[in-house]
Amino acid sequence: MSEKPKHHPLVQPLSYILGTWKGQGSGQFPTISSFNYIEELQFSHSPTKPIICYSQKTWKLGSGEPMHAENGFLRVKSDGVVELVVAQSTGLVEVQKGKFDGDEKVIKVESVLVGNAEKVLILFKSMFY
Amino acid sequence: MSEKPKHHPLVQPLSYILGTWKGQGSGQFPTISSFNYIEELQFSHSPTKPIICYSQKTWKLGSGEPMHAENGFLRVKSDGVVELVVAQSTGLVEVQKGKFDGDEKVIKVESVLVGNAEKVLILFKSMFY
Repeated sequence: MSEKPKHHPLVQPLSYILGTWKGQGSGQFPTISSFNYIEELQFSHSPTKPIICYSQKTWKLGSGEPMHAENGFLRVKSDGVVELVVAQSTGLVEVQKGKFDGDEKVIKVESVLVGNAEKVLILFKSMFY
Repeated sequence: MSEKPKHHPLVQPLSYILGTWKGQGSGQFPTISSFNYIEELQFSHSPTKPIICYSQKTWKLGSGEPMHAENGFLRVKSDGVVELVVAQSTGLVEVQKGKFDGDEKVIKVESVLVGNAEKVLILFKSMFY
């Protein structure tokens, strides 16, 4: 008997992102003071579906107070097309579509829908690398 | 010194939903065979924000194969208004708005935005009780 695959075939090329990624960052926006934060990204996967479960959390550096959080799914299509659907703690929902470049190990997505946003007009053009 | 509050004041009336809820259900849709499933809901909260982090997963009864999953946030406003933002493993994003009735302990929300849905026109009118 062959062993059950660990990853869905469509997710296999992206399997290097699975797991927990933690780091430090800084943010600047025109309307608020700049800030430093801790960021954690989690990517998990069940091999029966071409879907990666995604979550992101940030905390203030120093106090450890929670800041932003977002959850969603990275959906991998048969032709290298990827789709990221996200709900954010700020109340936004977002759909991003793009491509995975297996040679460069780059995922580039662009926002095609931002919903429930009162102030935000454009969020970001590409998300992670 | 007073003890730090366990919940944000706006979340306090809703704190009874916090934790993990697991149960069994059955589904019928006109276009597919009826099915039985295990469902798990998780509601977690950090006391510095009036936000409850929400996740739902279902598995096929018997085989334990993962079925649907969704993640998001229940945002509690100052006037009893609640807003649920959700990303689904099917690729949908959704915004639901409604009210929390503290006397009856009922949360009633209605869909105000369904994004990235190819087939679904109306999902549900009220979500949980």
